[in-house]
Amino acid sequence: MEPSQKLSWESADRAFKRIRPKKVLLQLPSGLKRKGLLFADEIRRRYGCEVILSGDSCYGACDILPPPIEVDAIVQLGHAPMRLRKGVVPIIFVPMLIDLELDRLIATALPQLKSPVGVIATAQHIHQIKDAVRILQASGFKALIGKGSSRLSSPGQILGCDYSSATEIASRVNSFLLLGGGEFHALGASLTTGKTVISLDPERRDATVRKVDQDAFLRRRFAIIQALAEAKTIGIIVSSKLGQKRLRLAEELLRSARNENKKAELVLIDDITLAKLQELGFDAYVSTACPRLTLDDGASLGRPVGTPGELMIALGKMHWDDYAMYHWGFTTRRIRRRK
Amino acid sequence: MEPSQKLSWESADRAFKRIRPKKVLLQLPSGLKRKGLLFADEIRRRYGCEVILSGDSCYGACDILPPPIEVDAIVQLGHAPMRLRKGVVPIIFVPMLIDLELDRLIATALPQLKSPVGVIATAQHIHQIKDAVRILQASGFKALIGKGSSRLSSPGQILGCDYSSATEIASRVNSFLLLGGGEFHALGASLTTGKTVISLDPERRDATVRKVDQDAFLRRRFAIIQALAEAKTIGIIVSSKLGQKRLRLAEELLRSARNENKKAELVLIDDITLAKLQELGFDAYVSTACPRLTLDDGASLGRPVGTPGELMIALGKMHWDDYAMYHWGFTTRRIRRRK
Repeated sequence: MEPSQKLSWESADRAFKRIRPKKVLLQLPSGLKRKGLLFADEIRRRYGCEVILSGDSCYGACDILPPPIEVDAIVQLGHAPMRLRKGVVPIIFVPMLIDLELDRLIATALPQLKSPVGVIATAQHIHQIKDAVRILQASGFKALIGKGSSRLSSPGQILGCDYSSATEIASRVNSFLLLGGGEFHALGASLTTGKTVISLDPERRDATVRKVDQDAFLRRRFAIIQALAEAKTIGIIVSSKLGQKRLRLAEELLRSARNENKKAELVLIDDITLAKLQELGFDAYVSTACPRLTLDDGASLGRPVGTPGELMIALGKMHWDDYAMYHWGFTTRRIRRRK
Repeated sequence: MEPSQKLSWESADRAFKRIRPKKVLLQLPSGLKRKGLLFADEIRRRYGCEVILSGDSCYGACDILPPPIEVDAIVQLGHAPMRLRKGVVPIIFVPMLIDLELDRLIATALPQLKSPVGVIATAQHIHQIKDAVRILQASGFKALIGKGSSRLSSPGQILGCDYSSATEIASRVNSFLLLGGGEFHALGASLTTGKTVISLDPERRDATVRKVDQDAFLRRRFAIIQALAEAKTIGIIVSSKLGQKRLRLAEELLRSARNENKKAELVLIDDITLAKLQELGFDAYVSTACPRLTLDDGASLGRPVGTPGELMIALGKMHWDDYAMYHWGFTTRRIRRRK
């Protein structure tokens, strides 16, 4: 059964009224690219503006580049809004909402959940988070939602780079219910909180229990830390994408690496690929961009790619005991010094 | 034998003195990427500025994007300067010069040349063009150099998108001598001028005669024109790259295609790849970006990709007899109307 999904135009309607763009650049994620013509027509019909399709990849709300042509706004379909520090032009989000069959799925989750339950959701499912809380409460569970950082569009939302709505309530709950499919977010939530995460996937009939094997994960990461420690040359990757760019952190890491006699350089990259990393030929890399690439797709990058925290451990500036999954607010300035 | 090659820093020295950048973005073509660390060191040592390496592809002087981080200049190694209409920040070029063994190579070319000879060169060899003229003259040949368009850095230079220095003198010469290897530029020069092109390739011991089989080429292109004529949906590609972006031409083509009842959209793309074109799913494309991709790598793009002129033929707005290889100044406004 296909899960029911729909684009939510309400906030876009308001934004178009406010901005009145004459020309927009339309960005679509891979799954929606093929309907580009239809969506361009829809936007022209609704708002009477010119539309230029972007043919480049668009992996998320963070994936925004300074537009190389003059447009009055960027329209991004399929992603929930993200607050970016500096918008080059206004960005109008048209989120894709996917409805989960909550009653049925939560019923299959109940045997695995331990009250109190923290409820979290990915962008496509965030509109159902209050319903999920009500259903849990009706079943006799205590349910909590964390507010999270200002980077998130709503309380309870998690991003691959931001689990703050989960970590904030982790000490007060005994398990998490995640509205959202796939492995990555469940893995991240479990790793950052240490709790079992039960996820509801629109593609599955039953809830999925995910208690991450932290040991296996950490063993893999330790190999990367080892490679960073041994590397003579390190490329410190800064993303070109507006929502993934952390130049200041990259500069901090550069100084730390050079202080420990590494030959290190800042490397600006848009999409991070195996071909690019091999061509540059550094012994190892540290990415300050989306952690998904480092932690999830890392094996496909052909070279060791670590997180900022992993570099600091490799350089002996942070202790292995302090290992925590990468988080967005990471800075080397807050590393606590041990005696 | 490795051809002798060296970076030419003279004009960069002057530009650095004038601009005094504190921070630069360093772009390298594939072949030089691996020496990124060395070049970054060299630039820091010479000019005392911060350097950020670009890890993205850089196919030529035209391949410049608005930098997503604040830098005072872009430094591009390995490419001859190109005059870009609008520079976002100053661009400092450090050309790579490759010396041909002119005496030996031209000696092997003489039996194939017919006086007067037009002399043309690609960017890496342009510094030897006057020597080539002298050697030809000493051998009793008349030799000419065309000035070409303002897009070129020196008289006699040709680009994959600009053969104006050749076409300008085509009617006054009987053959062309090209300082430069590979097939693409020789093909382009022969196609646009209709003359035999003898090319001197740094990788070869003898001159290469190239009299293009125009018929075979045109048959391949006719298949593309046919596909464009039959396509219901057409994506008109505008490049994100500053030196390849021709938005006005793309808009002209869009209007022409829509007037002939095609469902057409402008598509903004940085690097044009098979994956992106397949994902978008248009029946056919027209590229207003670098013609090399369309004409040379076209077969690897998986979908029919035509030039602006080819679209106009497909739409019945230009005659097949007027087929000319794509050239940079193309506009639909100058198409002569036949009775």
